[in-house]
Amino acid sequence: MRVEVVERVLRANDALAEEVRATLDAAGVLAVNFIGSPGSGKTAVLERTAALLRPHLRLGVIEGDIATTRDAERLSRCGVPAVQIETRLVGNACHLDAHLVRTALTRLVLRDLDVLAIENVGNLVCPAAYNLGEHMRVVVASVPEGDDKPWKYPSTFARASAVILNKIDLLPLTNFSMDAFTEGLRQVTEAPLFTLSASTGEGLRPWIEWVTGQRRTR
Amino acid sequence: MRVEVVERVLRANDALAEEVRATLDAAGVLAVNFIGSPGSGKTAVLERTAALLRPHLRLGVIEGDIATTRDAERLSRCGVPAVQIETRLVGNACHLDAHLVRTALTRLVLRDLDVLAIENVGNLVCPAAYNLGEHMRVVVASVPEGDDKPWKYPSTFARASAVILNKIDLLPLTNFSMDAFTEGLRQVTEAPLFTLSASTGEGLRPWIEWVTGQRRTR
Repeated sequence: MRVEVVERVLRANDALAEEVRATLDAAGVLAVNFIGSPGSGKTAVLERTAALLRPHLRLGVIEGDIATTRDAERLSRCGVPAVQIETRLVGNACHLDAHLVRTALTRLVLRDLDVLAIENVGNLVCPAAYNLGEHMRVVVASVPEGDDKPWKYPSTFARASAVILNKIDLLPLTNFSMDAFTEGLRQVTEAPLFTLSASTGEGLRPWIEWVTGQRRTR
Repeated sequence: MRVEVVERVLRANDALAEEVRATLDAAGVLAVNFIGSPGSGKTAVLERTAALLRPHLRLGVIEGDIATTRDAERLSRCGVPAVQIETRLVGNACHLDAHLVRTALTRLVLRDLDVLAIENVGNLVCPAAYNLGEHMRVVVASVPEGDDKPWKYPSTFARASAVILNKIDLLPLTNFSMDAFTEGLRQVTEAPLFTLSASTGEGLRPWIEWVTGQRRTR
């Protein structure tokens, strides 16, 4: 009974996700769904990304959080068009869904954007199950979380188009093993891995080139 | 319809949680449900806690993860009776529930324990909604996650009996503001806050005294 309901919810979500995707395609906007633990640094990565893309591509952002409009405010301060979804207003949802994204889209001027970043609720589990109509999905992990995350959350990493490992400036201060992380990651995906620090700016360039390339070839 | 099903699931869970609680009470075991983001250091806190409690109190552990038996193995190496629940075997559940805990309990000798730690799936959202039959709930946050977490996940922090802020050895290397974190926390709870580093061992003593006191007064 419960499984049936979950399946029905996911099917309804997929139908809405197709609508979202069609809207984005018509506007020529590349949409990227960012998934990561609370505090993995998704917003900081987006701040850096917006600044580095700016000369070439216009970024817009949909921010998902249980509560507060803090992240949308952070991006707005960087001059990025940003819409906040607070899921506490819709039953404390632990993830975004296509319906929420479709509603948020109406508050953005899509013809003024090239890339739309959708920052999901900080959660390494539930967001992975929901298609938002995005073109690609990026998982953001971070060094202090430990090198065992791909082993422990395999289905989330398996569905990533790319993986960012953030906070590499903290590598010397932790017992994080890059070999262990990479080994776990390669068990479930061949997606490119970008190791960087949104705090220091180290390693951003290959990531920016990848995003730019994805937008160009679309 | 969906809300109705969720409510039914939560009611069924509460009934099982009462059974779990009765079993624990009959055995004189204090059960603590640990909730935190992936990589907040829940397992490391439990390793330190087991070692420091050992002369006085016997700790047992139930470990919840999507995949792998790594955490139960880590605790077993410290001489702690540990049972792993892999939720990928039960539909990738993003949280533990009372049914899973009840099943895990049958694999522990309760009369040999004083305190049972239940380490929930790494997730700051979903575990908060599920009563496992525990006597108290501890939220484990960590410095690299940032000082905004109580603001962003208010209902999780609001239900905590105590809060641990782990990885304080990384304070000098981040822009974490203890004032901002405490202010956010005090918006939703008066629960005690223990600031510590499971890595260096700093700050463990008040936490251990608190757990010991909770067990004594029960």
